[in-house]
Amino acid sequence: MSATVHHLGRKATPSLEPLMALVASDMNHVNSVILNRMQSEIPLIPELAGHLIAGGGKRMRPMLTLAAAKLIGYEGDRHFKLAAAVEFIHTATLLHDDVVDGSDLRRGKKTANLVFGNPATVLVGDFLFSRAFELMVEDGSLKVLKILSSASAVIAEGEVNQLTAQRKIDTSEDRYLDIIGSKTAALFAAASRISAVVAERDEETEMALDSYGHNLGIAFQLVDDAIDYSSDSATMGKEAGDDFREGKVTLPVILAYARGNEEERKFWKDAVIGHKVTEDDLGFANILLKKTGAIDDTISRARHYGQRAIDALGIFPSGKARAAMTEAVEFAISRAY
Amino acid sequence: MSATVHHLGRKATPSLEPLMALVASDMNHVNSVILNRMQSEIPLIPELAGHLIAGGGKRMRPMLTLAAAKLIGYEGDRHFKLAAAVEFIHTATLLHDDVVDGSDLRRGKKTANLVFGNPATVLVGDFLFSRAFELMVEDGSLKVLKILSSASAVIAEGEVNQLTAQRKIDTSEDRYLDIIGSKTAALFAAASRISAVVAERDEETEMALDSYGHNLGIAFQLVDDAIDYSSDSATMGKEAGDDFREGKVTLPVILAYARGNEEERKFWKDAVIGHKVTEDDLGFANILLKKTGAIDDTISRARHYGQRAIDALGIFPSGKARAAMTEAVEFAISRAY
Repeated sequence: MSATVHHLGRKATPSLEPLMALVASDMNHVNSVILNRMQSEIPLIPELAGHLIAGGGKRMRPMLTLAAAKLIGYEGDRHFKLAAAVEFIHTATLLHDDVVDGSDLRRGKKTANLVFGNPATVLVGDFLFSRAFELMVEDGSLKVLKILSSASAVIAEGEVNQLTAQRKIDTSEDRYLDIIGSKTAALFAAASRISAVVAERDEETEMALDSYGHNLGIAFQLVDDAIDYSSDSATMGKEAGDDFREGKVTLPVILAYARGNEEERKFWKDAVIGHKVTEDDLGFANILLKKTGAIDDTISRARHYGQRAIDALGIFPSGKARAAMTEAVEFAISRAY
Repeated sequence: MSATVHHLGRKATPSLEPLMALVASDMNHVNSVILNRMQSEIPLIPELAGHLIAGGGKRMRPMLTLAAAKLIGYEGDRHFKLAAAVEFIHTATLLHDDVVDGSDLRRGKKTANLVFGNPATVLVGDFLFSRAFELMVEDGSLKVLKILSSASAVIAEGEVNQLTAQRKIDTSEDRYLDIIGSKTAALFAAASRISAVVAERDEETEMALDSYGHNLGIAFQLVDDAIDYSSDSATMGKEAGDDFREGKVTLPVILAYARGNEEERKFWKDAVIGHKVTEDDLGFANILLKKTGAIDDTISRARHYGQRAIDALGIFPSGKARAAMTEAVEFAISRAY
């Protein structure tokens, strides 16, 4: 293969398939670690954890660990346990997020907190988090432990930061990028990076993978934010408009507010404090978002980070792994269309 | 000093003072790590964490780490960071416990969940937990990491086990001991043991300290269970009777139920499902607990574990540290009188 420079938006319908195919056989190993290590003598633990873990989800983060290992030609098996640890950390944060947000739907299923109650959901999150560290300790790399314990602290900080920014219309774009950099991108980055650590590659390799994961994470989150308002999903999925109804100050809102006139700003102020929650309000919000170019520009921002993710792969040889990881970024962006 | 065999109940008024005096200067180091490492750029994090951490508490677990280090003559300073990590793990579980129990008072202050809300309390707990692991990773002992990550998983399992046993009158004494062995004693044991690891002492030393902490933890919890019913506290402290009103199946209840006649068992069944919550009901419960010897025997059981804790110290030379650690056990038991 030639060392083509990849640009976003080339493919008509980019897909996650190549990435999934690349790691399919390795993912079986990871899944068996996950199933094995979520067990406990206390039956409620695997029952509750299984509700979320077995309940679908793309296993995006462990996929990154596995794909990165392919990309750098790692031949060992240490990353299976670590990919499972990453998924446990992610699952723990999802369980706690659902308690924090009082959500009742995730991945189209009732949330664990709705089925099992908040107390059990908090505690099983704690269990999975501890189990993640046990898996890392078994692997024995202090460097991996450092990367993932630091990512975990950063995630928690990002979540608290987001909580503090809740319903605050004056949240700046910078602060918002800080928040999603912490709560979403930090684990994408760590998941990608750790394969380079177990494979004992150089710092440049580590940091390139970290950058790939980080930028992909930001792009993913920004597209999610845009999708939540996109009229297509609004007509098809029941979850579209959730951010609006919950008064979440995401990038589309930040841009529309910054670009709005006095009357429009008043609307957004009222919306984020919970005074605009009807379908008509959502309709008007969508008009403002379109008029100010806020959705389009949120997607442009996402494309910027996506391009950086792709360029971070530039130091690696072309091939199946790099192509699949590149297409994963294109897929992330394409979800907005 | 002579190698006297210590028996519980010798001293008229055992106190925690000797233990606190033993570790006072080292505790300053631990406190400065704690204060330093609970900081974050997100102001709500130190604010919420400080509410609980600065709000008193005996720092029992870090005291055990420091005292064990004195006992074995460790001269280094690695245990300061680790003692802080232990306190962070403990604080994280307290924050989550208060959310789980919906408590509104701890250490005579409003709980963090009442002041800051459940969402922030869950997330700051997660932050402290991650920070604990960062501290351990900085120390760099995989063995310490293994001991504390395993203790953390065991604590979470114990909490879920307790949740499952909630309001179940048929909880057996064995299961109850399992629960408190996990949720309380595991961290006492780990806190005591890790000093032997950083001091590179042998397995026998490690396990003796583990046993001391474990048995002390069980004794502490059983005495707490007894105190919650003792008539003295019932007249003075507003928290006495909480376990009864919340339908908690603690050892006093388990014993009184096992020893009760049909009518009494009916009373306990009703009580734990929440049908007996008045002061009169609590009064009647206290009559049954006295009549069946349930409180006295809970304290006897505590004394048994206390004696085992003291005997576990038998392999160490007599001296200030051993005397203080022995008196700490006597203090734990004496709180019941």
